[in-house]
Amino acid sequence: MKRKGKLIIVSGPSGVGKSTLIEETMKMRDDLCFSTSVTTRSPRPGEVDGEDYFFITPSRFAEMAENNELLEHATYVGNSYGTPRAYVEEKQADGWNVVLDIEVQGAAQVKEKEPDAVSVFVVSPSLEELEKRLTGRGTESPEKIRERLERAREEYKQAHKYQYIIVNGDLHAAAEELSAIITASHCLYEDRKNYLN
Amino acid sequence: MKRKGKLIIVSGPSGVGKSTLIEETMKMRDDLCFSTSVTTRSPRPGEVDGEDYFFITPSRFAEMAENNELLEHATYVGNSYGTPRAYVEEKQADGWNVVLDIEVQGAAQVKEKEPDAVSVFVVSPSLEELEKRLTGRGTESPEKIRERLERAREEYKQAHKYQYIIVNGDLHAAAEELSAIITASHCLYEDRKNYLN
Repeated sequence: MKRKGKLIIVSGPSGVGKSTLIEETMKMRDDLCFSTSVTTRSPRPGEVDGEDYFFITPSRFAEMAENNELLEHATYVGNSYGTPRAYVEEKQADGWNVVLDIEVQGAAQVKEKEPDAVSVFVVSPSLEELEKRLTGRGTESPEKIRERLERAREEYKQAHKYQYIIVNGDLHAAAEELSAIITASHCLYEDRKNYLN
Repeated sequence: MKRKGKLIIVSGPSGVGKSTLIEETMKMRDDLCFSTSVTTRSPRPGEVDGEDYFFITPSRFAEMAENNELLEHATYVGNSYGTPRAYVEEKQADGWNVVLDIEVQGAAQVKEKEPDAVSVFVVSPSLEELEKRLTGRGTESPEKIRERLERAREEYKQAHKYQYIIVNGDLHAAAEELSAIITASHCLYEDRKNYLN
């Protein structure tokens, strides 16, 4: 019997190292993949359809949203982005644990449609640490950094909606925790009760 | 800040390999220990008080039971056994994850008193496999083995009260699952929310 993969929601403030954490976890296990989003924006040079995004027309996007074909969707700067349900379900049926790296509003939409999704909120050891990381990037103005920190504080207020918190201090330890959360999720009673027959 | 240990309830039919599984998991992590039970039975040759059991008098046992000093207790063949709450809490305060290897009735008592305990039910890949293991021991009569299998079937009916199921087929894989469950339990929102301040 082929084990169905899990949907893993990963959220957390900008600068907290979500992508790095997920990539580190992928090195530890061969059953983890990212979801590929649909978007109405045009491909940038080098972007590949079906890899970076599924590039679709606004009318197709509207249709998907209306037909409940998206687990979540949002609009940024005039372009729409969404998580295609069929794509995710296919990956799960193939045994993949599918990671969605999404912000808190999107996460809430997914959790409503897929209550069995595992939800993880990533934080930095402290807001001071987060400020240091954002400053260390050297790419953003003090004003922009203040904005990001303010937004982080707001997002932290939504953390209670997540099952798990990972503190991304030591990257390897954090990735081991994310991996453990995924492994544990496959041991839940509901996932294993067929062994009781 | 010192992280408080978890209480880990492990149940499952006789012959399913619970002790071996727990010992294998202990090899993987240095924060896991067994609880030591109190008992009214006399020490057997070689048994050490405070290691194998805390050997106590029936009147002290009755007192502990009455004063809610036991997380669970039961009587077998005229002797009483119980899990001392203070001992377990001390170990947890020292950072130990404390494993209770107990049967389903005891587990229900603990879960009622300690709702945050993590509960794991261990099964064999199939009842045929369990029968093979019990037969393989070569120590029990066919009649006794039939009894044990009948009891296993009864215990399986209580498995829905547990959060997790571990299928003890490949010992190492099963121990990795138990370890992952423990690691994940320390990442729960309630255990980490202090990082959100």
